[in-house]
Amino acid sequence: MAKKTAPAVRDALRVRPGAGLHLTPRDTPVGPSTKAEAAEDLVATGAELSELQEHLFAEARRSVLLVLQGMDTSGKGGTVHHVFSLVNPQGVHVAAFGKPTREELRHDFLWRVRKQVPAPGRIGVFDRSHYEDVLIARVDELVPREVWEARYTAINDFEAELAAAGTTVVKVFLHISPDEQRERLISRLEDPAKQWKYDPSDLAARAKWPLYEEAYAAALERCSTTAAPWYVVPADRKWYRNWAVANILLETLRELDPRPPAPGYDVAAELARITYADPLA
Amino acid sequence: MAKKTAPAVRDALRVRPGAGLHLTPRDTPVGPSTKAEAAEDLVATGAELSELQEHLFAEARRSVLLVLQGMDTSGKGGTVHHVFSLVNPQGVHVAAFGKPTREELRHDFLWRVRKQVPAPGRIGVFDRSHYEDVLIARVDELVPREVWEARYTAINDFEAELAAAGTTVVKVFLHISPDEQRERLISRLEDPAKQWKYDPSDLAARAKWPLYEEAYAAALERCSTTAAPWYVVPADRKWYRNWAVANILLETLRELDPRPPAPGYDVAAELARITYADPLA
Repeated sequence: MAKKTAPAVRDALRVRPGAGLHLTPRDTPVGPSTKAEAAEDLVATGAELSELQEHLFAEARRSVLLVLQGMDTSGKGGTVHHVFSLVNPQGVHVAAFGKPTREELRHDFLWRVRKQVPAPGRIGVFDRSHYEDVLIARVDELVPREVWEARYTAINDFEAELAAAGTTVVKVFLHISPDEQRERLISRLEDPAKQWKYDPSDLAARAKWPLYEEAYAAALERCSTTAAPWYVVPADRKWYRNWAVANILLETLRELDPRPPAPGYDVAAELARITYADPLA
Repeated sequence: MAKKTAPAVRDALRVRPGAGLHLTPRDTPVGPSTKAEAAEDLVATGAELSELQEHLFAEARRSVLLVLQGMDTSGKGGTVHHVFSLVNPQGVHVAAFGKPTREELRHDFLWRVRKQVPAPGRIGVFDRSHYEDVLIARVDELVPREVWEARYTAINDFEAELAAAGTTVVKVFLHISPDEQRERLISRLEDPAKQWKYDPSDLAARAKWPLYEEAYAAALERCSTTAAPWYVVPADRKWYRNWAVANILLETLRELDPRPPAPGYDVAAELARITYADPLA
């Protein structure tokens, strides 16, 4: 039975405390090794994901939060598109976190994030997140060291609080190589339909690649907790990235094993009513 | 060119002032006449919808609001699932309006609705809407006649205001027959995985079918405006329903003809930078 499978994908991709980036952008440590295999597998994955998501929605008690992080062009938007096309959009809430507004900057860094936490029954997706506050904030020295240093603990506390309240937090780092980013930035610039996705500041961030590597390694090592683990998804190949994220989500939902609530009415009596006493018959 | 096609679907399904329900639940006044044809056509529809939605998102100036109404089991949820699986969930915001909370009841009936209006660049979907306030509110006499009577004008004003602010409002009535509803209610009751969707009050509403017909006819006749037309979608057959809603949306987006903004940077200069002065080379 598929449902009894061990969480092999999560086991292979999960960041162990202190381990940081244990995979390269083209690794395939688990699952399909070709695009065709991945496509075939995604059909079954999609059907099961869709059913489990409906049960989560019906149960309306717990929720899942998928946090997506990665360098520019790592495919956060594409992952949302491909993975969440498999489930009912009604049960999904996507929040994208851009540069904070002036109002957001007047509050604690978690203020805008808390407002987007998924309601019971929903799957929330963060396209960037509170991790930006220990990534760009650290690399660009937007705040003093003691401020961003304190944030790792604040994040772990926040995520433990979410977990305790019934939200399963799943954090995915989409791991691409500098070469792949270069190809993708050039593609964006060469395709008039994609030029809006490019910003000259993307190259400024690219120039700081080693600093970002350091910042990501710190976030992954310090914030991969039992309550809210980090997963590294090799993302140079889009088909592997989509397959891996869909299967991390699938294994997470299988473990939650959501069940629609038992009917709060007498099923047989209602069937009898509509069969023998249909008001419109 | 497909893009030059006249808005044949909207023309065939649009409610003309005073015309009310001009179609029956099994009509196919336009488009495919078999499930196989509809499935084939939806592939091309999906690809074009997805592209137009990305352009709407990139343009980030205008928005679309799809309002779905219909009797229980008419397929509002199923339509959201099937039609919006075709586009990027990141650009879609689904809001479901259930029984108003106590807080909502203390405010004007449009209060909770205004909060869910789609942001620029997004497609908003309402699963039920402010129309409940002239449907169940009228049928069950939840408010005095003079209160619900005044709401038709309030709704038309509200929707004209949305249209003027750049939100294209598209309202769809999913039209099912009493027989089809009976079959679907029985299916829900007989399938343990679907029993949570059933509520004994569904039968109480069913008993008032003629009153609901009257209330829907009034809403369709009085609120199908130039700024925000109503469409009747025959919904006894799910494949026709999904096809029709996807194509109403498609024609609406084609007419808006959204365009990604011109790049605010020098494309050639950026290409030269990454080609000849790549910071990581």
